[in-house]
Amino acid sequence: MSGALGRSVPRLEDDRLLRGRGRFHDDVVRPGQLWLRVVRSPLAHAEIRGVDTARAAALPGVVAVVTAADLPAHLRIPVRQPHPGLDFTPHLQPPLARGHVRYAGEPVAAVLAEDPYLAEDAAELVALDLAEREPVLDARTAPAATCEVGVVDFGYGDVDAAFAGAAHVVAAELRTGRHSGTPLEPRGLVAEPDPDTGRLTVWGAAKIPHINRRVLATLLALPEHRIHLRETDAGGSFGIRGEFYPEDFLVPFLALRTGRPVKWSEDRAEHMVAANHAREQEHRIELALDADGRLLALRDEAWLDNGGYVRTHGAVVAALTASMISGPYRLPACRSRVHIVKTNKTPIGTYRAPGRFQHNFVREHALDLAATRLGLDPVELRRRNLLTAAELPHERPMSVFGSPMLLDGKDHLEHFDKALADVGYDRWRAEAAEARAQGRLVGTGCAVILEKAGLGYDSAVVDIGVTGAVRVVMGGANVGQGIQTVMAQIAADTLAVPVDSVHVVLSDTDLLPDGGGTFGSRSTVVGGTAVRDAAAKVLDKARAVAAELLGAAPGSLVARDGGLAVEDAPDRRLDWGAIAAASYAPRWTAAGDEVGLIGRATYAAQGMTYPYGAHFAQVEVDPDTGKVDVTRYAVTYEVGRAVHPEAVRGQLLGGAVQGIGGALTEEFRYDERGVPQSLTLDTYLWPRADELPDIQVEVYEDAPAPGNPLGLRGAGEGGTAGSGAVLAGAVRDALGLAGDVGALPLHPWRVRSLMSLKRAEEPARAPAEASTKEAS
Amino acid sequence: MSGALGRSVPRLEDDRLLRGRGRFHDDVVRPGQLWLRVVRSPLAHAEIRGVDTARAAALPGVVAVVTAADLPAHLRIPVRQPHPGLDFTPHLQPPLARGHVRYAGEPVAAVLAEDPYLAEDAAELVALDLAEREPVLDARTAPAATCEVGVVDFGYGDVDAAFAGAAHVVAAELRTGRHSGTPLEPRGLVAEPDPDTGRLTVWGAAKIPHINRRVLATLLALPEHRIHLRETDAGGSFGIRGEFYPEDFLVPFLALRTGRPVKWSEDRAEHMVAANHAREQEHRIELALDADGRLLALRDEAWLDNGGYVRTHGAVVAALTASMISGPYRLPACRSRVHIVKTNKTPIGTYRAPGRFQHNFVREHALDLAATRLGLDPVELRRRNLLTAAELPHERPMSVFGSPMLLDGKDHLEHFDKALADVGYDRWRAEAAEARAQGRLVGTGCAVILEKAGLGYDSAVVDIGVTGAVRVVMGGANVGQGIQTVMAQIAADTLAVPVDSVHVVLSDTDLLPDGGGTFGSRSTVVGGTAVRDAAAKVLDKARAVAAELLGAAPGSLVARDGGLAVEDAPDRRLDWGAIAAASYAPRWTAAGDEVGLIGRATYAAQGMTYPYGAHFAQVEVDPDTGKVDVTRYAVTYEVGRAVHPEAVRGQLLGGAVQGIGGALTEEFRYDERGVPQSLTLDTYLWPRADELPDIQVEVYEDAPAPGNPLGLRGAGEGGTAGSGAVLAGAVRDALGLAGDVGALPLHPWRVRSLMSLKRAEEPARAPAEASTKEAS
Repeated sequence: MSGALGRSVPRLEDDRLLRGRGRFHDDVVRPGQLWLRVVRSPLAHAEIRGVDTARAAALPGVVAVVTAADLPAHLRIPVRQPHPGLDFTPHLQPPLARGHVRYAGEPVAAVLAEDPYLAEDAAELVALDLAEREPVLDARTAPAATCEVGVVDFGYGDVDAAFAGAAHVVAAELRTGRHSGTPLEPRGLVAEPDPDTGRLTVWGAAKIPHINRRVLATLLALPEHRIHLRETDAGGSFGIRGEFYPEDFLVPFLALRTGRPVKWSEDRAEHMVAANHAREQEHRIELALDADGRLLALRDEAWLDNGGYVRTHGAVVAALTASMISGPYRLPACRSRVHIVKTNKTPIGTYRAPGRFQHNFVREHALDLAATRLGLDPVELRRRNLLTAAELPHERPMSVFGSPMLLDGKDHLEHFDKALADVGYDRWRAEAAEARAQGRLVGTGCAVILEKAGLGYDSAVVDIGVTGAVRVVMGGANVGQGIQTVMAQIAADTLAVPVDSVHVVLSDTDLLPDGGGTFGSRSTVVGGTAVRDAAAKVLDKARAVAAELLGAAPGSLVARDGGLAVEDAPDRRLDWGAIAAASYAPRWTAAGDEVGLIGRATYAAQGMTYPYGAHFAQVEVDPDTGKVDVTRYAVTYEVGRAVHPEAVRGQLLGGAVQGIGGALTEEFRYDERGVPQSLTLDTYLWPRADELPDIQVEVYEDAPAPGNPLGLRGAGEGGTAGSGAVLAGAVRDALGLAGDVGALPLHPWRVRSLMSLKRAEEPARAPAEASTKEAS
Repeated sequence: MSGALGRSVPRLEDDRLLRGRGRFHDDVVRPGQLWLRVVRSPLAHAEIRGVDTARAAALPGVVAVVTAADLPAHLRIPVRQPHPGLDFTPHLQPPLARGHVRYAGEPVAAVLAEDPYLAEDAAELVALDLAEREPVLDARTAPAATCEVGVVDFGYGDVDAAFAGAAHVVAAELRTGRHSGTPLEPRGLVAEPDPDTGRLTVWGAAKIPHINRRVLATLLALPEHRIHLRETDAGGSFGIRGEFYPEDFLVPFLALRTGRPVKWSEDRAEHMVAANHAREQEHRIELALDADGRLLALRDEAWLDNGGYVRTHGAVVAALTASMISGPYRLPACRSRVHIVKTNKTPIGTYRAPGRFQHNFVREHALDLAATRLGLDPVELRRRNLLTAAELPHERPMSVFGSPMLLDGKDHLEHFDKALADVGYDRWRAEAAEARAQGRLVGTGCAVILEKAGLGYDSAVVDIGVTGAVRVVMGGANVGQGIQTVMAQIAADTLAVPVDSVHVVLSDTDLLPDGGGTFGSRSTVVGGTAVRDAAAKVLDKARAVAAELLGAAPGSLVARDGGLAVEDAPDRRLDWGAIAAASYAPRWTAAGDEVGLIGRATYAAQGMTYPYGAHFAQVEVDPDTGKVDVTRYAVTYEVGRAVHPEAVRGQLLGGAVQGIGGALTEEFRYDERGVPQSLTLDTYLWPRADELPDIQVEVYEDAPAPGNPLGLRGAGEGGTAGSGAVLAGAVRDALGLAGDVGALPLHPWRVRSLMSLKRAEEPARAPAEASTKEAS
């Protein structure tokens, strides 16, 4: 261990990216490439009576126009992860609409032309004969018989009994908006067939290249060994880039059909309807508490607006919403049921902190309501209920994704107390109280979150060549998060080489036959451990080779300064290159192992890791416009171990900004016919840098994860998971609401209506805040 | 085992090749590629006073002209295999000549231009200022002090004592000509740098792609993981294609230097001076026999004409010449010393049956002489001396290439007797005697050979994807020999899939991190065993996965009809695709092994295998011209096991044709200044189809090799190894020579001189035939 971990070294990616040498999918230009343009439904729900492609096909330079009729009738994009008891088959999306269109933006036809302008012109000549049908636009009121895909149900304990005996019951109905990752770089793909080898090379894969290769192989009935996914940079993923979309079939399919390279590069408006949406849910949450404010039970029923089809994630968002709503609290009984409801909107998927943004909001907001009702300080209410060291590890008596839910934190109360102190939350509250005393609408909020990460497996190969160069190939994907640097650090630590000398390759299916992918904050935990194990295997092999050459015991050799040295005789040493060259000698090729300094490892987590943290916010509401100004914001996060602390901080900071966007401004809106109203960044409102405060990020390494050797907990989503919760609480505090905020995001118009509510209707609304009651 | 072995299935390669879909190096066309032309020395030996590149560089379209001055001063192409006690360092070749040129054709400068015509024009404008020196053209008379690289010496037993006590001593001085593989497709290379990834892709590699990648990495100081060698077809190798030549450095070097793809495609005249030559040796051989014709000892001294530099093979040809000269005979004492002598000709390397073509010729020819001297039938003389079952395995008390020389045949006498019968050699002899009685110059010859194969290691990966497709990647190279078919058969046999459904990839350094290569008749023995082992690992993994799904014991499952089935309940079965898909379930990813149905294996031979055989020929010499007409020819060969019998027959047939060429017509000739005289196929005389008889090939599988599980002995070189010997014997018989033929090839002018010798000088020549003597 040479100390490459825990240091915020310059990122390997940055020299290239900052010099404009990044290579994104759109930088891939293949000789003779054709351009794909997708013809999309303008209507949310309609029967397809006909698609007339003749005028488009007749345009000079148009090479092909295909519709569903050109594809196998039963072709559907499969779900990656099954959910017990649910059959998604009738709800899966075909690559091109068949019979009906179910959301505005659904692919109906695909046009291939010699240049992108021609393709776009030709796409406009494809005539769709659509008979419009009534769209379903609200999940809660949608007819279950036709729209409900299924119900996902998690829980434990006797919830009904707990509620029956509770001193206090607090209830609320709360909604979250429809958001997405909206990465800076829209999606795109280039596929090139090689007629000589029969192989297809695809650029633009992300997130789960190996899984998607298997899906593509199945859909094309092409051996996956004939499909080679190659690394490109990606301008953000956030869970949505890299899922298998209709275009991920269409581009390779048309490349094979025409024998020419095919490129597709989404424009922004297209991205806003084509890429997975996320988050839109309505919850009815109830908390049961005893007279001292101790939680007895949580009961939740939710309706998840799934959009027009069940996409690759299946029921993952619903499952994460329901299974983890209990948070890091001492909660004897809990049950959450999530209805997955099809509507006529863009289908949804997993977007940074899926389910948790929502359930943290509804649970924490209900806790804020409970504090008000019980007359308790919201901080104190949380303190009373957080799990402490004596109770941890704590097993929730249920399983999630096939593994038991074993909360592995060190002390959630301790974390919260430390966070309160580090943030100086008391001072924030004092400032707010002072401002409110001056008549300003200033408030604070705090939210406690439990995250999850590190599920599943990943694979890695580490090798050292005769020039001494170290390469790492692992199954994650570069989505801009700095994964190459982190993986290089982990290998460099074991092999005692400079971090920037390690070459890291991702998303290359030839160099690594299988890998897990980058999602769920897992790449450092799972992939990083695989890299560590693979590097350790290289070290072992190298020790054996070098020991013979140096006449030393293998155990006496340590990695140091780019090679191996006898621990107490540093002059007796060999460079990695010399050891690699020696590893091809007959002595070492006879063993039957892979030859050379190469190590392969797969690391499979036994269960999830649980990073945890807290969010704090101070806001001021403009009394005239309802605009929420975030004046202070802090995230504290227990990550177990930070390989690259600045990268972790960057994840939390960026995550918080994205969470703030979803809490305050971002939203996909539709008109009453289901026509999308948020096709640009002027209408889907990212938070702007000038609207954000300096965000304080505190990364804690107090509680190494017990489940993996580096103690990693993962860090990708904690910045987002609590934003809705904390800002809802802060706005509620600023406005002095007795009730809840009702819905996120807290657009100015929504805040203004809350302000009027407070002033005019507070007494009337309090009962409608639901069955908040004193125990009988 | 599903019976895919031992069947001459249609070759996988042929559909593609016969339809003109082969993809040779010259079919690789990269956008923006430049063309390399090598400026070569017109003189055999000269001091370089200057190289003026100005006029060439000034030609529009010329991108670069480089000389040795542009390369690191100490850059030399290394030797792949060291030889104990020999230091090759002073004799290694620089990619471009420095200070002196040492053979006509040596690269002196390299010109890079936008098209091949320009490159050739520009190359002619490069002015070489050369001061000619006296060339060394004869290895035996060359001054040892300046020309001898070293002496390779193998042997065992007390040779001198055996000769001292011998009843008969037969001696001869014999020469073999200068030949090469001269494949139908000359060599070539395309290298393309990717500025985005920093990687270099190279097409055109053959023989030993992984080893050459390491050499290239070292010479370029570029990590080998940045170098990707990719598969192409190759129109013949025969040991010479795929060694690391100056151009194998120059093309990648210039591609990196210019950042553009660079292509080089040799023309025939260039090939004739640039590619390794081979075979030119002079031997002084002596046999000691007892009164009954039993061999007591063999003593041999030889001079190997090495050409101007020691190339990659180092001393391998010399070592194979010396170490295996004893053949499959009962020989109590043996010693062979080979002088490696530098001359001013093209450097030499390994060409099909290196060393064995030569030593079989001199040993068998000496046996023919001994038969004449002793008045014994040449067949009977051999029969008395061949090792028999009771003596086998037989260890020669010496080691070759690091392993003991353990002859593993079953019964060499039995093979020879079976061969005589199957060929009907008695009838050939009777025909010849009858013809001679009519005054025609008809004769027969027989020669016994011991071959070697199967040395070293190779690696393989076998995987099965979710569509059920099987892929094999192994470390050999496709040089036209049908290796893809044979590897597919081996995998198909284990996995019970159609042979033509198996996809075989060779020479791809990304898909296989290391491999041994294709040389020394080793690919089926060593690589095939690696494929077998890798497929067996896939089978094991699949059995475990399928057993759970089928509720059966893993051991009860057998590979059958593209999947696994319960042996006695064939309806309980799963296709490979279904098993592959199931292998990604969490149950199977948790083990830490590589995920999916994938198996990797390296097989390292414990020692060489020894295939063996015999050659038989009947010739008629034209009394006027001296032209030798081969009227009958047969090869018998014990291969242990033939995976694809027709491919083995093809190897033996083609090998015999190539051997016949070397024995009768092919030869690189030089004038007295060392200027090459054989730059075309009109002057380097391949045997033509209309000059060849139907060649009888008998493949025997009587003696499976004990050293590897499939019993393979290798089959690539036996067709060539005995041709010189057998034709020399047949011509000697036809002419009724008491003495030897002196030299190969037996050009008409040489045969005519032998005819005159026979008629005019036979008594005078007999003493000069050397110290043939009766025991005192």
